[in-house]
Amino acid sequence: MTEFQSKIRTIEWVDTFSRMVDQTKFPYEFSFVDIKTGQDMFDAIKTMIVRGAPAIGIAGAHGVVLYAQELEKENLSRDEFVSKLLEKADYIATSRPTAVNLMWAIEKQKEVIKNSTSDIKGLIEELKQNGIKLENEDIEINKKIGDYGAEVVPKGATILTHCNAGALATVGYGTALGVVRSAFAKDNTVQVFADETRPRQQGARITTLELTMDGIPTTLITDGMCSYFMKKGMIDMVCVGADRIAANGDTANKIGTYTVAIAAKYHNVPFYVAAPLSTIDTSIKSGDEIVIEERSREEVTHINGKSICAEGVNVINPGFDVTPHELIAGIITEVGILRPDYNKSIIEAFKNQ
Amino acid sequence: MTEFQSKIRTIEWVDTFSRMVDQTKFPYEFSFVDIKTGQDMFDAIKTMIVRGAPAIGIAGAHGVVLYAQELEKENLSRDEFVSKLLEKADYIATSRPTAVNLMWAIEKQKEVIKNSTSDIKGLIEELKQNGIKLENEDIEINKKIGDYGAEVVPKGATILTHCNAGALATVGYGTALGVVRSAFAKDNTVQVFADETRPRQQGARITTLELTMDGIPTTLITDGMCSYFMKKGMIDMVCVGADRIAANGDTANKIGTYTVAIAAKYHNVPFYVAAPLSTIDTSIKSGDEIVIEERSREEVTHINGKSICAEGVNVINPGFDVTPHELIAGIITEVGILRPDYNKSIIEAFKNQ
Repeated sequence: MTEFQSKIRTIEWVDTFSRMVDQTKFPYEFSFVDIKTGQDMFDAIKTMIVRGAPAIGIAGAHGVVLYAQELEKENLSRDEFVSKLLEKADYIATSRPTAVNLMWAIEKQKEVIKNSTSDIKGLIEELKQNGIKLENEDIEINKKIGDYGAEVVPKGATILTHCNAGALATVGYGTALGVVRSAFAKDNTVQVFADETRPRQQGARITTLELTMDGIPTTLITDGMCSYFMKKGMIDMVCVGADRIAANGDTANKIGTYTVAIAAKYHNVPFYVAAPLSTIDTSIKSGDEIVIEERSREEVTHINGKSICAEGVNVINPGFDVTPHELIAGIITEVGILRPDYNKSIIEAFKNQ
Repeated sequence: MTEFQSKIRTIEWVDTFSRMVDQTKFPYEFSFVDIKTGQDMFDAIKTMIVRGAPAIGIAGAHGVVLYAQELEKENLSRDEFVSKLLEKADYIATSRPTAVNLMWAIEKQKEVIKNSTSDIKGLIEELKQNGIKLENEDIEINKKIGDYGAEVVPKGATILTHCNAGALATVGYGTALGVVRSAFAKDNTVQVFADETRPRQQGARITTLELTMDGIPTTLITDGMCSYFMKKGMIDMVCVGADRIAANGDTANKIGTYTVAIAAKYHNVPFYVAAPLSTIDTSIKSGDEIVIEERSREEVTHINGKSICAEGVNVINPGFDVTPHELIAGIITEVGILRPDYNKSIIEAFKNQ
């Protein structure tokens, strides 16, 4: 199989800081920002300079290293250092409540902290190396997801995606868009329809940017249009990412995903979720237990700083929704495509890891 | 029943010209524009200074009067005058292809032209009076639609609507929002969820404006959110307008409506269309025959003049979609609520007119 060469590296540890693509400036600017303190990392996650569950995970891991570097300067005893660092790690985990990868990556760093026998300097080095290892693993995992997913992409398919589960939501290559990249490498007649994804327009701002940068034909549509194109037979499959997947396969993803899934079901278009196993939270039985983050009123009422509606209007702005497992044809992971009954296939997947 | 008093009059014939609310300036400005020539009316319809199928119908009727006033100055014979005016009437009808009310209103004016025995001056006066009659009838029809519709609005209901089928889509009062107004007059715990309605954001720009002007509680949501709120049991019914209804009940309305209808079906939320009989085109058997207008790329790629996506992206921008009759619980008209089988109930409705 031809391997797809992507131009995009979203986040990378550089010596003593974390360098990331600044995603708040899309689509006008493709620039990088260097994050040098733990608090700056917390803010970068919260304000979505970095976004996408897997990328947030790595950002969290980097954030722990940044706090470790700061605490090192405080001349603490090793015990105090460890205790304060664990607190800081938990603090970073609160920057975005829905993405399980953040908790997962921070847990990985906490394991390093708890298991290390090195002195403070040595421990910091171990945290750095672990962060870099998680980065590299993320790309490798995405390539595996891409290659498994490509097997279910029909020849010449048009793939509809929602939000951005791309190279820019991960360290690189992407999950849902990793499937697109791997499919495109095999068959360059594959193309993408990208939902705008209001309110934050990640589909318009980010997905169209990264796919056109990588030369993959992309059509932008508004969120309400998916059914129109499905009815016309113009969509062959849907592939989206995930922020958290419950033990039964219920999948939290960007708001609007659930609507697309219902439309896909109505038109018999297969709806796939592409996500690493780290996105699966087997501690929750179903989507009912997933906390949905409510975001600010302004994301709905303003675009590019300008109001689009009457002043007196109410707003409710859930950041995510939950697509129930019965609407999902398969969950594409780094160990293969999980199929219903997800309660069983998910347990199997973790066993075979 | 308390009658609802709306503050809004969208279009009105004033002496020798047509005065309309300028809908391109929403939500920043609520101002009026006076249209004084036939070509200006054609442009006002095409550029959506006036929009909404019933309002466009009246605009078309006014346009015929404006052309008649212009042709009067050319010192034509009566036969030449009539022949040229009929041409101009047909020309106005091409300003927007999907809205059947435009053809319908222009047909009404053409009947006046063909049946009149008056001289040119007298004919122009007849066209004016007919235009004013259509205006007044539109409001009366909407109030009847509203009152019939209010009967199926549950107590304390939250009504989801898409686009703007309000006072600002008609001469006044509205069709779908006429139902809201009549329901609210009976029960002031009724409230509205308004879909933003990308690409042109009529829900955000227009529906939130007219409902808050009239004191009806309104929550703005993005188009992808409807399923989320339906699943939470927060939406009791959907009520939308229509641009054209086929003999079998298939309904063309603003793009995104079909997606809402599918979501409503999935959640067992009743989905109603509110429209005057003039919106029903019995000459077409099903929605397959409805021509869908494709609109400009910029409506999708730009908001408030600013790009929201990568430059190299493709766009397809259908202005409307067709909701199949099987997703529609009822069509609320001025002669009552039509129920399936629509092929029968529509014929009955026209008989009883």
